[in-house]
Amino acid sequence: MSILVVGSVAFDAIETPSGRRDRCLGGAATYFALAASYFTPVRVIGVVGEDFGAEEEGVLTRRGVDTRGIEHVSGKSFFWSGSYMKNLNEAQTLNTELNVFQSFSPRIPAEYEDSEFLFLANIDPVLQADVRRKMPKVKLACGDTMNYWIKDHAENLARVLPTLDVLLINDTEVKMLGKENNLLTAARKVLDMGPKSLVVKHGEYGATAFFGDHSFAGTHSTTPFRAPALPLAEVVDPTGAGDSFAGGFFGYIASQPELTPAVFRRAMFYGGVMGSFAVERFGTERLQQLNPKEIEERFALFRELSHLE
Amino acid sequence: MSILVVGSVAFDAIETPSGRRDRCLGGAATYFALAASYFTPVRVIGVVGEDFGAEEEGVLTRRGVDTRGIEHVSGKSFFWSGSYMKNLNEAQTLNTELNVFQSFSPRIPAEYEDSEFLFLANIDPVLQADVRRKMPKVKLACGDTMNYWIKDHAENLARVLPTLDVLLINDTEVKMLGKENNLLTAARKVLDMGPKSLVVKHGEYGATAFFGDHSFAGTHSTTPFRAPALPLAEVVDPTGAGDSFAGGFFGYIASQPELTPAVFRRAMFYGGVMGSFAVERFGTERLQQLNPKEIEERFALFRELSHLE
Repeated sequence: MSILVVGSVAFDAIETPSGRRDRCLGGAATYFALAASYFTPVRVIGVVGEDFGAEEEGVLTRRGVDTRGIEHVSGKSFFWSGSYMKNLNEAQTLNTELNVFQSFSPRIPAEYEDSEFLFLANIDPVLQADVRRKMPKVKLACGDTMNYWIKDHAENLARVLPTLDVLLINDTEVKMLGKENNLLTAARKVLDMGPKSLVVKHGEYGATAFFGDHSFAGTHSTTPFRAPALPLAEVVDPTGAGDSFAGGFFGYIASQPELTPAVFRRAMFYGGVMGSFAVERFGTERLQQLNPKEIEERFALFRELSHLE
Repeated sequence: MSILVVGSVAFDAIETPSGRRDRCLGGAATYFALAASYFTPVRVIGVVGEDFGAEEEGVLTRRGVDTRGIEHVSGKSFFWSGSYMKNLNEAQTLNTELNVFQSFSPRIPAEYEDSEFLFLANIDPVLQADVRRKMPKVKLACGDTMNYWIKDHAENLARVLPTLDVLLINDTEVKMLGKENNLLTAARKVLDMGPKSLVVKHGEYGATAFFGDHSFAGTHSTTPFRAPALPLAEVVDPTGAGDSFAGGFFGYIASQPELTPAVFRRAMFYGGVMGSFAVERFGTERLQQLNPKEIEERFALFRELSHLE
């Protein structure tokens, strides 16, 4: 089933210990869409400037991604420049130019209205809430956020959380949002804010899912679920790892007839799989040219890595 | 089969956000012996002072631990005082009094010579090498170490490593020893120093095993293995978590007729299980009064927490 993703489409300049790229296609929606495209049809809502041409659009359309919701306006696309020279686990932002993204106001094309799955990438929670309100009939809504919104836009974020089936968030963010240093306690407090479930990303240590008291996904369980990450000898470029995780995770869920506990668990593994591919090369290079066999082989490796039998 | 453990038996004073204890039985050998005692017979070699009496000895003997190798000498036992008020993941040492431990020279009682499994807890690598040399026929030798020995006694440590079947070490230590910031690269470099396998503990994120090119444990594989840790709402006292992990891990291995890849994997889970019990109460309180049913239930929880089916 189709996923609608709303988020940034951008250009990035990146330097890491493995090298640098002065300009590559990036943005949360781009990484998400490419990763999810291996599992299910994807539709994108975003905004770009005049510097986004046929070549960039082709990166998405070659993977079958529906780009009719990407608005082209005059001006330059969102540009981000970051360095991982000091710490591969955390980008140091060198420059952010919002450009056309500054006045981004998501419009939902009529052709997208029947989307059954909605991914709200990391954007202003006011926009997230607006899109969510306009898509009341989606089967599942999943959202991402970041420290900036947690710190300075907490009230707006609080309005989005109860409308989400899954909140994707990282370790630091869940502790900041839950105002607790303990992972489990923080997760419980964030679940109390309304999302039906929570997937906390631990970077190189994998991810943990937490479920509320709801009977979400037929879990009827408050036991968390931990998915591993693959130890990699070289992380070429960590940019987009979280959005690629989200794409693998939600893409797999959308490809299945029903959300069951087993589907949720496998989705966590596919999230890790797509994240592990993303960081093997700069930007979206690796995500552009995967094939289903490689994905299944890596899924099998994740299982071998973590299963008793 | 019997495990011989050589290490510290001590008194600890501990403060954590959950409270404080001015004096409780501690030491790596104590935590290890109690945790392993639920799986297999355990024999201890250590040294204590006059302050170690029938009550302390009873903690070990009530769990069937053979304490004939604990030497009693005049003076005071090893004393350690630490605080976790600032950081539950890392003890701040307030005071260390080596006392009788300063001149510890492990002697192996004749009754211990047929031990098939040897655990060298975190002590001076010169002593570790000496004990290892005196026990050439053990089926498996497992060892622990810490940053102090890695930094300032690297040459001595280098002599122990090739004699170990399993080196237990934490994240920071493996990176320090391998002189690499990347976990996998560091692990490979440490494997090149001689241990047949490596278990890297990640605290609340579980542990990862790495295997060399050896055909150790019938693995014939260079795929790592990741075991989860249980997200806990309250860590009452982290002291001894690593030694309890070691006790569960090595105790389970020693209880099995043969070391296979499946046994190694289950052992990693039992390590996590015993570590998770240890931190639920102060000192060794929880480890003194477990029962096999609780252990199996928690093992099942670890499986549920991490397995796709």
